[in-house]
Amino acid sequence: MATCRFLILWVLATATATAQTPPVRVQGERISAHLQALSQFGKNPQGGVSRVAYSDADVAGRAYVLGLMREAGLSVQTDAAGNLVGRRDGTQPGLQPLLIGSHIDSVPEGGNYDGDVGALAAIEVAQVLKDRGVTLRHPLEVIVFSNEEGVMLGSTALSHGIEAARLNLVSQSGKTVRAGVQLIGGDLQQLAAAQRTPGSVAAYLELHIEQGAVLEQAARQIGVVEGIVGIIDCEVTVQGFANHAGTTPMNQRHDALLAAARFIEAVNQIVKATPGRQVGTVGWVRAEPGAYNVVPGKVVLGLEIRDLQADKIRALYAEVVKQAEVIGQQSGTTFQFEPHAMSEPALTDTHLQAVIAQSAQALQLSTLQLPSGAGHDAQEMAALGPIGMIFIPSVGGISHSPKEYSRPGDIENGANVLLESLRRVDAEAPGP
Amino acid sequence: MATCRFLILWVLATATATAQTPPVRVQGERISAHLQALSQFGKNPQGGVSRVAYSDADVAGRAYVLGLMREAGLSVQTDAAGNLVGRRDGTQPGLQPLLIGSHIDSVPEGGNYDGDVGALAAIEVAQVLKDRGVTLRHPLEVIVFSNEEGVMLGSTALSHGIEAARLNLVSQSGKTVRAGVQLIGGDLQQLAAAQRTPGSVAAYLELHIEQGAVLEQAARQIGVVEGIVGIIDCEVTVQGFANHAGTTPMNQRHDALLAAARFIEAVNQIVKATPGRQVGTVGWVRAEPGAYNVVPGKVVLGLEIRDLQADKIRALYAEVVKQAEVIGQQSGTTFQFEPHAMSEPALTDTHLQAVIAQSAQALQLSTLQLPSGAGHDAQEMAALGPIGMIFIPSVGGISHSPKEYSRPGDIENGANVLLESLRRVDAEAPGP
Repeated sequence: MATCRFLILWVLATATATAQTPPVRVQGERISAHLQALSQFGKNPQGGVSRVAYSDADVAGRAYVLGLMREAGLSVQTDAAGNLVGRRDGTQPGLQPLLIGSHIDSVPEGGNYDGDVGALAAIEVAQVLKDRGVTLRHPLEVIVFSNEEGVMLGSTALSHGIEAARLNLVSQSGKTVRAGVQLIGGDLQQLAAAQRTPGSVAAYLELHIEQGAVLEQAARQIGVVEGIVGIIDCEVTVQGFANHAGTTPMNQRHDALLAAARFIEAVNQIVKATPGRQVGTVGWVRAEPGAYNVVPGKVVLGLEIRDLQADKIRALYAEVVKQAEVIGQQSGTTFQFEPHAMSEPALTDTHLQAVIAQSAQALQLSTLQLPSGAGHDAQEMAALGPIGMIFIPSVGGISHSPKEYSRPGDIENGANVLLESLRRVDAEAPGP
Repeated sequence: MATCRFLILWVLATATATAQTPPVRVQGERISAHLQALSQFGKNPQGGVSRVAYSDADVAGRAYVLGLMREAGLSVQTDAAGNLVGRRDGTQPGLQPLLIGSHIDSVPEGGNYDGDVGALAAIEVAQVLKDRGVTLRHPLEVIVFSNEEGVMLGSTALSHGIEAARLNLVSQSGKTVRAGVQLIGGDLQQLAAAQRTPGSVAAYLELHIEQGAVLEQAARQIGVVEGIVGIIDCEVTVQGFANHAGTTPMNQRHDALLAAARFIEAVNQIVKATPGRQVGTVGWVRAEPGAYNVVPGKVVLGLEIRDLQADKIRALYAEVVKQAEVIGQQSGTTFQFEPHAMSEPALTDTHLQAVIAQSAQALQLSTLQLPSGAGHDAQEMAALGPIGMIFIPSVGGISHSPKEYSRPGDIENGANVLLESLRRVDAEAPGP
């Protein structure tokens, strides 16, 4: 009897607690307000933002975000590579940290969502956990990576280290990366020490805008990213023979631009000929000498091919090279390929994919599996532990543009999936 | 008896005169020596010459040529447009002058034959006539035209006059045309007065290198030019939509460079589809924004079409515009055409064509009729009287290049055809 009355009391108490304690969720309006505030740093008159790494706008934006991280109860340090690292201890000793984050630097004349959404959502997750008195088992690190858009410096410093050549590059700010790292409070002497060891991260989760229109066209709310594509890019030189455009009959020309035109069409045909989501692009071209009245003698152009499977990238590239040989023979020109080092695909962890999908389903959000065609800090974090990525729709698929836009509701959804996934991963292995 | 003895004496005298008096011919070695001397002004370290109009080299080269003209017995004046005009009176009053000439300015990093051959051959013709005591019936004018390669200033000043806009252009020398004309001794105040009236020239004859490989491939020594082609040139803008090359699936692109590639191929196909010697070229191209990882959103390129028949040029252009419409519809892009004013074809006088051909045959030189694909001062002179043009072979068809070359024997042949044609025209109409 006493037991029975006790049980009834317990049930009542539980029911009351459930009614009074809403589920732990992010505050969408707060993320929107933070996005709006961050958009002022480097705002372009014509819309969008130019907050390139190491610019004044970047420095000011980082200061703003640092404040938000401290408000969210994080203990923040600027590491040797200029990453803002906000940490909060977990309840269980000996566990590796769970990492969430993204970046806040932009391309020139970029938008307000690429990077910003993921960085501010990660801070919002920390804020909510603090406000709701939730402490994870694992240590939590919120990282705002430095210079993602330029040379992915911050995340690469943690994963593989930074070679001197990369420090000497001149960034979009006009400063060298070396000078930029110092400007934002990095420490060149300690840069090597910033590198972390493989296995030192329990999991890395990143929320990002899709930057494409796949989710929008499929009318899905959450993208479960299968991996970040590998990229081969290559400078292609077409050598013909420059001659007077008035005096050289059509059948006596070695027109490098005509050959290049056939090559551009061939790249498109080859990439589309195989089923799959691979992409191939000729994004830039230069014809020499480049005048109305001269048959172009030389063309240099930029080719890139991306896919989740490294083998497929290599096969497509080989086919392109083969087809160029044919075009060269038919047009009296020669093709030369100078491929850069291939960036290998970085697959996301299949278990984390499942966690993200389950979290979305628990929040009654529709999902779609898709690759990330763009590079992200997550691909570097893959060297340190399992990674998972969450995409939200980009309106019109537009990115790297002032027209870049993601709806507040989608941002809130993505942040909640990030929070939910983080809590589920935290609750899992390794057990005490 | 007396008559008979007289006849024998006359025959002997004539035979002796024939044996002692060689035919009036140019001295090939002297032209070669003059070409060699002129090549020193603006000589490039890597070969060829950069004697752009109004440069120090141009000024020095003009002074050298002025000296040659005076040696050849010409009374030389610099006219208001900076043309060097060397005149020698004829025997018959009231006849309009016969003009011969060309130019000595070059393109940047050009060769030593384009223009120079015709100018020095014209001076050689005057020199030979002086040396041999031959005076023409018509006044003779040897003209070295100013700034042919830039804006064809000297000859246009005589034919159609120079509008202010052309004077404000910045020439390859870095100086405005206005400043350049003053530098070489022209007179801007008298520029309008330099214009001559239609019908004021009895005939204009110009020797020039072919700048193509038609004569060489046909193994002919002298080209009888049918006319100077007309040219339409046009800036073409292809508007697509710039987007991320990694995140934009192949079937969702509006790739302006892919559309431009198809356009370049279409121009080539359309121009080659019709029989004839018309040419069509896309000589320059610019893709924007122009990066490996961005699908090009905009391409601007330069199109030109040349032919001897204005109607054919217009028909080909219309076909190109029509085909661009189709390509635009198929690739989700739009094409915009901004044609410049068409330069109309300038046909040579058919009688002068015959005179040139007969002169060559008399010299036992093989001939071929062909159009001039390049522009020449002759096309302006066509406004003032009948024109004739003589071509000699360009080795390999190369021009506007340090590799430009014509053989001394061919140059001598061409100068002799110029001399012979001039004498035949002089002997013809109008009679006294």
